[in-house]
Amino acid sequence: MTLTQNAPAPLTPADPTADQAVLIVHGRDRTGLVAAISAVLGKHEANIVSLDQHSDNPHGGAFFQRTVFSKAGLEAALPQIEHDLRVQLSEGFDLEYNLRALSVPKRVAIFASKADHCLLDLLWRHRRGELPINVAMVISNHADTAAEVRSFGIPFFHVPSSGPDKSAAEAQHLTLLAGNVDFIVLARYMQILSGEFIERVGVPIINIHHSFLPAFIGAGPYAKAKQRGVKLVGATAHYVTEDLDEGPIIEQDVVRVNHAHTVTELQRRGADVERAVLSRAVLWHAEDRVIRHGNHTIVFQ
Amino acid sequence: MTLTQNAPAPLTPADPTADQAVLIVHGRDRTGLVAAISAVLGKHEANIVSLDQHSDNPHGGAFFQRTVFSKAGLEAALPQIEHDLRVQLSEGFDLEYNLRALSVPKRVAIFASKADHCLLDLLWRHRRGELPINVAMVISNHADTAAEVRSFGIPFFHVPSSGPDKSAAEAQHLTLLAGNVDFIVLARYMQILSGEFIERVGVPIINIHHSFLPAFIGAGPYAKAKQRGVKLVGATAHYVTEDLDEGPIIEQDVVRVNHAHTVTELQRRGADVERAVLSRAVLWHAEDRVIRHGNHTIVFQ
Amino acid sequence: MTLTQNAPAPLTPADPTADQAVLIVHGRDRTGLVAAISAVLGKHEANIVSLDQHSDNPHGGAFFQRTVFSKAGLEAALPQIEHDLRVQLSEGFDLEYNLRALSVPKRVAIFASKADHCLLDLLWRHRRGELPINVAMVISNHADTAAEVRSFGIPFFHVPSSGPDKSAAEAQHLTLLAGNVDFIVLARYMQILSGEFIERVGVPIINIHHSFLPAFIGAGPYAKAKQRGVKLVGATAHYVTEDLDEGPIIEQDVVRVNHAHTVTELQRRGADVERAVLSRAVLWHAEDRVIRHGNHTIVFQ
Amino acid sequence: MTLTQNAPAPLTPADPTADQAVLIVHGRDRTGLVAAISAVLGKHEANIVSLDQHSDNPHGGAFFQRTVFSKAGLEAALPQIEHDLRVQLSEGFDLEYNLRALSVPKRVAIFASKADHCLLDLLWRHRRGELPINVAMVISNHADTAAEVRSFGIPFFHVPSSGPDKSAAEAQHLTLLAGNVDFIVLARYMQILSGEFIERVGVPIINIHHSFLPAFIGAGPYAKAKQRGVKLVGATAHYVTEDLDEGPIIEQDVVRVNHAHTVTELQRRGADVERAVLSRAVLWHAEDRVIRHGNHTIVFQ
Repeated sequence: MTLTQNAPAPLTPADPTADQAVLIVHGRDRTGLVAAISAVLGKHEANIVSLDQHSDNPHGGAFFQRTVFSKAGLEAALPQIEHDLRVQLSEGFDLEYNLRALSVPKRVAIFASKADHCLLDLLWRHRRGELPINVAMVISNHADTAAEVRSFGIPFFHVPSSGPDKSAAEAQHLTLLAGNVDFIVLARYMQILSGEFIERVGVPIINIHHSFLPAFIGAGPYAKAKQRGVKLVGATAHYVTEDLDEGPIIEQDVVRVNHAHTVTELQRRGADVERAVLSRAVLWHAEDRVIRHGNHTIVFQ
Repeated sequence: MTLTQNAPAPLTPADPTADQAVLIVHGRDRTGLVAAISAVLGKHEANIVSLDQHSDNPHGGAFFQRTVFSKAGLEAALPQIEHDLRVQLSEGFDLEYNLRALSVPKRVAIFASKADHCLLDLLWRHRRGELPINVAMVISNHADTAAEVRSFGIPFFHVPSSGPDKSAAEAQHLTLLAGNVDFIVLARYMQILSGEFIERVGVPIINIHHSFLPAFIGAGPYAKAKQRGVKLVGATAHYVTEDLDEGPIIEQDVVRVNHAHTVTELQRRGADVERAVLSRAVLWHAEDRVIRHGNHTIVFQ
Repeated sequence: MTLTQNAPAPLTPADPTADQAVLIVHGRDRTGLVAAISAVLGKHEANIVSLDQHSDNPHGGAFFQRTVFSKAGLEAALPQIEHDLRVQLSEGFDLEYNLRALSVPKRVAIFASKADHCLLDLLWRHRRGELPINVAMVISNHADTAAEVRSFGIPFFHVPSSGPDKSAAEAQHLTLLAGNVDFIVLARYMQILSGEFIERVGVPIINIHHSFLPAFIGAGPYAKAKQRGVKLVGATAHYVTEDLDEGPIIEQDVVRVNHAHTVTELQRRGADVERAVLSRAVLWHAEDRVIRHGNHTIVFQ
Repeated sequence: MTLTQNAPAPLTPADPTADQAVLIVHGRDRTGLVAAISAVLGKHEANIVSLDQHSDNPHGGAFFQRTVFSKAGLEAALPQIEHDLRVQLSEGFDLEYNLRALSVPKRVAIFASKADHCLLDLLWRHRRGELPINVAMVISNHADTAAEVRSFGIPFFHVPSSGPDKSAAEAQHLTLLAGNVDFIVLARYMQILSGEFIERVGVPIINIHHSFLPAFIGAGPYAKAKQRGVKLVGATAHYVTEDLDEGPIIEQDVVRVNHAHTVTELQRRGADVERAVLSRAVLWHAEDRVIRHGNHTIVFQ
């Protein structure tokens, strides 16, 4: 399915990510981890382009490292580099790691409903070459955006989902997704995902919601915010867990509002923040800049 | 007590507020209100310097207007202007109004505890002539800031308040405040005010708190925010009502934080936002830019 | 041409702008202007929905007022209201004024070149009903965006313009525009307009440019900004005058950048600010919130 | 002179910087640098707390690395670590490096004139323990702030400087500074430093200026900004070079303003940004987060 996907047009003559890979490592901190990792890379004559490291406690906390390196003939060398890292990191230090060539974009499915602002912003940025992703498909419980999505050259699947029992819809989702995507983005998808679906789909899911939570739970949050006279409206992008809207936060932002704004205007300003925040979260996830740890994230910008 | 108060030094040769007054009007909207108000001012040959008006619903909602006008010989003319407004507005239209010469600063008492960032920022801005207020006194349940406050030429009263029964302390507060202040600022005052105190003191009270509410209730909000991995910390200034931390919001703001910030750094950044937000709320209240309505505010900036 | 234009879909069941008009008045300040204006509106039983007034100097400066009022049967009454305002304002006080029914959107032509981010953002917001405008046409010196523009139901005209002599292209522009538009938006139109064109077209022109000016004049501003190590990139929307990029500013904004951002990433972040700033400038102009005065603007938000 | 300096009060029971050092390395990028550095640290059983690395071009650009590490008994071990780094980095790779124990705050002289907002903000943050610096002295060409500075327990020196010939004043400055400070902060010091002074003093100098440059050069920038109708005012902190106001930028920020703000209010808002931006620049410099390279900076936040 992704074979016909338009690759993002390169913005620069020479693709800077050619022959570059990103390595994420995390686990229990101990002395010598940075040296061990860079020794493996050095042995392969890989050049470190950027390296961000964080320990949440210098005395026995958790260790996080993101390394981008370049190596001529990366594709051929990657299996051996991975083998050496596995020996050093998994077996030597009991660390988790993830190694990926940057030239291979992550494959994503976008779930949407009627509101199209987040969906279109992602498709549009993708077409401009701003997002290193491969949009495998858009799935929606409404048919409204089908023509628009397909005009971007992206497959659109309409999977209706009404009533409390989502099992039929979720079964269809799993069929479409299996093996085809590396992560999922809920671009204002107004359906709750079951815990079983989250577990079975097995890839990270990014969601966007307004930032009033837990202040204005339930329907009509902007009307409640108007009544409360808030001076800021915002949005939060987070990974989906079984605790609805409570998963690890990736990004947040706000905009100013005032008493003269109607509920409709609050919603519009909120929509602007939502699409900006979601696009940053998707970009950072696609570039492997986000590491989950407990119920929070490390974001190496 | 306020006789010895240092007046804010004028920043410009000619005080722009001399011979200026501010008029606040609010009530049920109906046709002809702006015309009626400006007719009274026109009759007195007062020149309107700025006028902000807002109706929350063009069909029978609430009406809010802030007018600043200048008039040569304001002091002598004010009683007659007020009389004419009363006849027109209170009696003719059943509106509430407030009229005040801008050259007379509002008198304020600042309540503080150990944390001094909000207190010092207010005193410092006041000394620089940025706040059109007269700081009548600082009241604290700790003696730590006495010397610093007095170095600004401002009376400091230490009123200890421990244990659940605040009645003795609050009685002392009322004695100090009675007739001396036009509003109160809680500059990180870490004691809860009783409903009885709020009612008996009879002047508006402005409070500042971190903006996580209602997310991280209780002790250690920044530690909880750290654990949750928030990407923004903020502050909210609001009027105090009996519903703790739930009164009408005057101003809010946020700053970005990231995973590398410790709880101490979150607190410092939070303190920076707190003092900025509180100083804006105090300025706007002092300039009669804030109108309370239900549980929200109209802020004419 | 505009007959087939899709009207923005109403977002709310009852259009709040039905039977509403906006009145802009400006000129030399003197006592009694607000009263005179509201007396005319009161005589017609028009209800003032919002009123913003500003004097840039209480002693003989300039006067600016924006009034939104509602009146049942507005369309029928407008000519008589306008007549009475003319008698009062133009003849009585020598003021300039502009009166317009809010239900009639302003007609705009958008000029674009190859970069499509500002163009598409405007078309998209328009389709969502966020901009009270009627997009009469898009004119471009490149044909690239023709299909996309027409997919929004908007006429696209390709007017090539190369070489230093723009007179043929500008003549064609004038033919297309004459009588059809109320203002023009340059959405990253990379051609300089002649002073003669600006004068002959006779409607306001809004432009957007990066905010480094006058720092990084000429080609490659982002490369220069990268070399200088700026920590913010921004955008400015302004009215076009003969002094290139020096006309009255309508809106400005910035985003943070850092040393790790490449020139391409600076451009992307710059593009995000550009489209946000331009869309706010267009909205405010379309709602008659912007008054030009000398080389600056009064913006009533 | 610095012996009597109040050390910043620790905010947390256990000082997190005890036994921690910061290492800055920069020079020409080549394969193996990170490995070489971490090998030296690993040999000494130092634990890397945080590591930020940046290459401005993966193919033969410049290399920048900031490493914070902890080591039990740091003080005793530091000379040997430095020796090993010198052998590895200076001699092996021709890199520049800087190694410093974090528990030893940098010593700073603050230069000020009449405006006290930046000066007081630094002294106040320092007293609160927010800035890991040792304020060795304040030097001013005006005596106005002497008492206030000394109330913070900090020496104040009044060095008048009038007329075009600064050589006498600068000679006195050099006498006061020689051997006593690690960097200088110009906290709105309204005198131009000679190129000879900058060279002879031999330590980094941080300056703060409004961000309109080069737009509104010379006297009265805020009056010019008001006339131009800018919608943002800002501030830039930078290292001082012989090119006045053109040195490497450390930090920038802005605040929104509008047409209703007077020149005085623009100045106040500008002052708020100035003190915020300067305090961040001083903090980052004090924590060795800023690396100068050509005419720009790498800031590892």
